[in-house]
Amino acid sequence: MPSDRHARGLAILQQINPKSADALFAELAAICPDLSRFVTEFAYGDIYARPGLNLAQRELVTLSALAALGNATPQLKSHIVGALNAGCTRQEIIELMLQISVYAGFPAAINGMLAAKEVFAMLDQAS
Amino acid sequence: MPSDRHARGLAILQQINPKSADALFAELAAICPDLSRFVTEFAYGDIYARPGLNLAQRELVTLSALAALGNATPQLKSHIVGALNAGCTRQEIIELMLQISVYAGFPAAINGMLAAKEVFAMLDQAS
Amino acid sequence: MPSDRHARGLAILQQINPKSADALFAELAAICPDLSRFVTEFAYGDIYARPGLNLAQRELVTLSALAALGNATPQLKSHIVGALNAGCTRQEIIELMLQISVYAGFPAAINGMLAAKEVFAMLDQAS
Amino acid sequence: MPSDRHARGLAILQQINPKSADALFAELAAICPDLSRFVTEFAYGDIYARPGLNLAQRELVTLSALAALGNATPQLKSHIVGALNAGCTRQEIIELMLQISVYAGFPAAINGMLAAKEVFAMLDQAS
Amino acid sequence: MPSDRHARGLAILQQINPKSADALFAELAAICPDLSRFVTEFAYGDIYARPGLNLAQRELVTLSALAALGNATPQLKSHIVGALNAGCTRQEIIELMLQISVYAGFPAAINGMLAAKEVFAMLDQAS
Amino acid sequence: MPSDRHARGLAILQQINPKSADALFAELAAICPDLSRFVTEFAYGDIYARPGLNLAQRELVTLSALAALGNATPQLKSHIVGALNAGCTRQEIIELMLQISVYAGFPAAINGMLAAKEVFAMLDQAS
Repeated sequence: MPSDRHARGLAILQQINPKSADALFAELAAICPDLSRFVTEFAYGDIYARPGLNLAQRELVTLSALAALGNATPQLKSHIVGALNAGCTRQEIIELMLQISVYAGFPAAINGMLAAKEVFAMLDQAS
Repeated sequence: MPSDRHARGLAILQQINPKSADALFAELAAICPDLSRFVTEFAYGDIYARPGLNLAQRELVTLSALAALGNATPQLKSHIVGALNAGCTRQEIIELMLQISVYAGFPAAINGMLAAKEVFAMLDQAS
Repeated sequence: MPSDRHARGLAILQQINPKSADALFAELAAICPDLSRFVTEFAYGDIYARPGLNLAQRELVTLSALAALGNATPQLKSHIVGALNAGCTRQEIIELMLQISVYAGFPAAINGMLAAKEVFAMLDQAS
Repeated sequence: MPSDRHARGLAILQQINPKSADALFAELAAICPDLSRFVTEFAYGDIYARPGLNLAQRELVTLSALAALGNATPQLKSHIVGALNAGCTRQEIIELMLQISVYAGFPAAINGMLAAKEVFAMLDQAS
Repeated sequence: MPSDRHARGLAILQQINPKSADALFAELAAICPDLSRFVTEFAYGDIYARPGLNLAQRELVTLSALAALGNATPQLKSHIVGALNAGCTRQEIIELMLQISVYAGFPAAINGMLAAKEVFAMLDQAS
Repeated sequence: MPSDRHARGLAILQQINPKSADALFAELAAICPDLSRFVTEFAYGDIYARPGLNLAQRELVTLSALAALGNATPQLKSHIVGALNAGCTRQEIIELMLQISVYAGFPAAINGMLAAKEVFAMLDQAS
């Protein structure tokens, strides 16, 4: 792991979902590149880079929080890709969405499940 | 696994956090025992009992949803016990709470961390 | 119905839960009496006073919103009293909390149910 | 009422909003048919089928929770149809959305009202 | 300031974002003109009209609440215009969105920032 | 301003609410000192330290987000102290809570107002 926070964050983004990060950073470039830097340095360089949970577990945490909150569909979709890249299976993601019904209700579970379906279909088409 | 939903749910509750389930069911007995039955049959008998994610992964999902939503402290605490019983380590729970700061902000992460601290201290005193 | 918004709001508060409104207004007196006035005039004088839903239906709406949001326990409890005063039965309130499990998850349903239990017990002791 | 949970759930869905349920179940078929089954068996077969609140009251509860949470527009719209089918009037739904402004703020009320407007227009066109 | 609540509300809407209010009121006219009236009279005539915070500060409050809740994108966008009209700078709005990351997480901050970007671009094109 | 993120964060915490930060960091010391470090370095060293909004404006943003979310009372109270230390007046904080009623509903506004009342009383007693 690079010792520099920025390099470390970029290395992890590279493993998880570089296309989605690049697209986000391109969108933010004209309004607030510092937000891209904070995502890279804090979210990925400081937090995702820590030992204690592996990347697949971290993506389970992320998907569960986003599906339960239900207020950030673009991020939910990009972390479904990230979870697959980190080694989670489609079946695990489907199970996770089912379980969200217990804690955040069926609409959150259904909307999370349909987001997963859309992402899986997009990946199948791309391959 | 018992084939009956109710028996299956009780068997899983027995593994995860029987004391907390008993206390909740005792509290609900005088107002709505059917809610206890739905928790047992649907949440545990139908959902937790499924293959696809193991119990430790399911508790990661649960803790992440509850810490992000931040609206159910008693359930968050009882699932911190459940996560430990399902094989999660204290360090994994601490990492999970740290990561919640990225998706639900620092107050949610801090309140989840302090809930974990309180549960760990209670368990240390009990042992 | 009084034609004046303030008088109309007070008349409805008198029907629903005057003790709880008095307690709230006493608490707010020293910091922001205008907030009490807006509650009386807008929430009760403008909204609750409207035709189209009767008071019992309005309290179902209120309890459902508060139980689903799960972020305002004191208001949830005082509207459980209000719902009973508006003609809802205890059984209807229990059913409502059960149904919240479908839309906001079991922790919200359980915490709403236990709030109802506490209010019912308090009323039984007072009588 | 059928004694079997699945048949009972389907019978109630048939009364409330069969077109929307069919569309959802068709969407879920390729990713997680079990989620459709849980919606049918738990949400409708176990909860909606209970006595204590009639279907129109249950739809008031549902619309209030969904409008307050504000995180599930497709479900909000499909339950506006369901509420009408269960015997609620358009005027009652409009009043409900107005009252949500008191508990969840004006943006939630406005977005719920515009969802109702869209559903009413769609129904008018279809008839 | 007009002493009448309705006139006072309209006068403030005129300063903040008359085009967006007109569009909303036109949309609501056919379903619930009373909601437009309550927005004008309560939100603007009663609250925004008060001394104690100037309009620019009030828009900071509004944008912060809406970006943190993350459940009302149309209102968020229309208050970004309102904040600029009330004297906030683009840089202040960008800083506000950055700070939301601390209290509501990065997805809320990113979605608020991209809403700001879209509004700024729309204003640049219109001018 | 110190160029080092950690020193810069501590310098700002010193201005805003050192007692509350010390208490939090003491509580976190035994479970996750890294969370204290991330609060200091990211929230205060990176974000609060930026130009573009002054500290009083930043505390308005923070209080508005926390009062609207309604899920973090301890942090809300400690930022009411912080807002006063950053130069906000009690009247501004009261106005802010009133305005939250428009965007997050009356219960959120009432609970925020009562939190402010409690903090003001505590400060009056301490002086």
